[in-house]
Amino acid sequence: MSEPQRSTPSVPHFHEQLGALQTQLLAMGGLAEHRVRTAIGALVSRNLDQARTVAAGDGPINALHVEIDSLCFRLLALHQPMAADLRTIVAAAKINTDLERVGDLAVNIVEAASRYLQHPPVKQLIDIPRMGELAQAMLRDALDSYVSRNIDLAEDVLRRDDEVDALKSQVFRELLTFMLQAPETIEPALDLILISRHIERIADHATNIAEDVIFVVAARDVRHHSGDGSEASDST
Amino acid sequence: MSEPQRSTPSVPHFHEQLGALQTQLLAMGGLAEHRVRTAIGALVSRNLDQARTVAAGDGPINALHVEIDSLCFRLLALHQPMAADLRTIVAAAKINTDLERVGDLAVNIVEAASRYLQHPPVKQLIDIPRMGELAQAMLRDALDSYVSRNIDLAEDVLRRDDEVDALKSQVFRELLTFMLQAPETIEPALDLILISRHIERIADHATNIAEDVIFVVAARDVRHHSGDGSEASDST
Repeated sequence: MSEPQRSTPSVPHFHEQLGALQTQLLAMGGLAEHRVRTAIGALVSRNLDQARTVAAGDGPINALHVEIDSLCFRLLALHQPMAADLRTIVAAAKINTDLERVGDLAVNIVEAASRYLQHPPVKQLIDIPRMGELAQAMLRDALDSYVSRNIDLAEDVLRRDDEVDALKSQVFRELLTFMLQAPETIEPALDLILISRHIERIADHATNIAEDVIFVVAARDVRHHSGDGSEASDST
Repeated sequence: MSEPQRSTPSVPHFHEQLGALQTQLLAMGGLAEHRVRTAIGALVSRNLDQARTVAAGDGPINALHVEIDSLCFRLLALHQPMAADLRTIVAAAKINTDLERVGDLAVNIVEAASRYLQHPPVKQLIDIPRMGELAQAMLRDALDSYVSRNIDLAEDVLRRDDEVDALKSQVFRELLTFMLQAPETIEPALDLILISRHIERIADHATNIAEDVIFVVAARDVRHHSGDGSEASDST
């Protein structure tokens, strides 16, 4: 990333650049969500070609990731914002990282899906596409809550994570039963379990974003206040 | 996180505060590494009590996470640093998040380990502790490279990630063989596979930190330049 080359007199208006940053974050979110949808679609429709397009297509999202990061640094360096604006920009850099990881998880999903599709179907897929829809909606709403500074929506995203975790546990238990009853399902069932965990991590990134929004808008840190230890959620 | 309450005249020297930030990051890294070591130790020595201490002991690391984040914001708001100092502080906030996630992964490991320990051992554990040692050393060296601004060390951390990925794939293949041959090993072997993936993610966090170091020191972005698509590494 290069240092800002613009000299101070021609610095564009700060809030104009902040608006551009939010537009780019929404575009990044759109790309990430599209990749997740295509990845899960490739699994459900057993379409290996579609899986390959996801595996090979991370160029645009990676380029946007670098561009947004660079814009965040330019905004911090040129405008030296305080308080709420400072939190908004640092949150943008964090959200950018979360969205890039979501794009990586789409690749993880199609890698496991490509192996899964080498075998006959273990079962009709219902819970995994449902998990995917929930995670995508959480991601969309988390980004919307950032742009609209809507704390209620961000808190709603946090609540919905439990539903994704419950589906993940259900998927695990059901596939374990298959594996125990029919050893020929062990390999493909394992890949479905991994896919469900990749989707769970996408939902986790959505909750990270929602937590950042609550911090930006309310200057309130909600990250370590849950008493139930549910942060590290591997309780299948 | 509260806004800075200090008025400008009594602002302590910037580089003194930057030093305090690095000390706290090293303390955070020490806590995270200790939790990972205790978690894997509990698995290897089949010690459920030790596993419970990890599951219940995330208070200190969470408190330090909030404290470091708050210090980063104070430094940005009070001193409005430019260029290298700006990158150093933003990187500190990212590294802080990585270390907090490593602490969460230690909990994920003991949750899976606690289930695993309900069954007779599937096999003598060799590769998983080895993965754990590699991941911990990567984490330690990544943090050292941040504090000492040592790019060679950071690049060395990036290279070592391949070894962890190779061990993860080996663990997967070996356990799959067990599962196929002896269905009674399916449940515990699944938990070992999950544990190996949690450790792999710890190594991924170490590489994130090393990438941040290279960006801070060399103002060079190494995140999306690998042509082999190895970023999303689920190619078991």
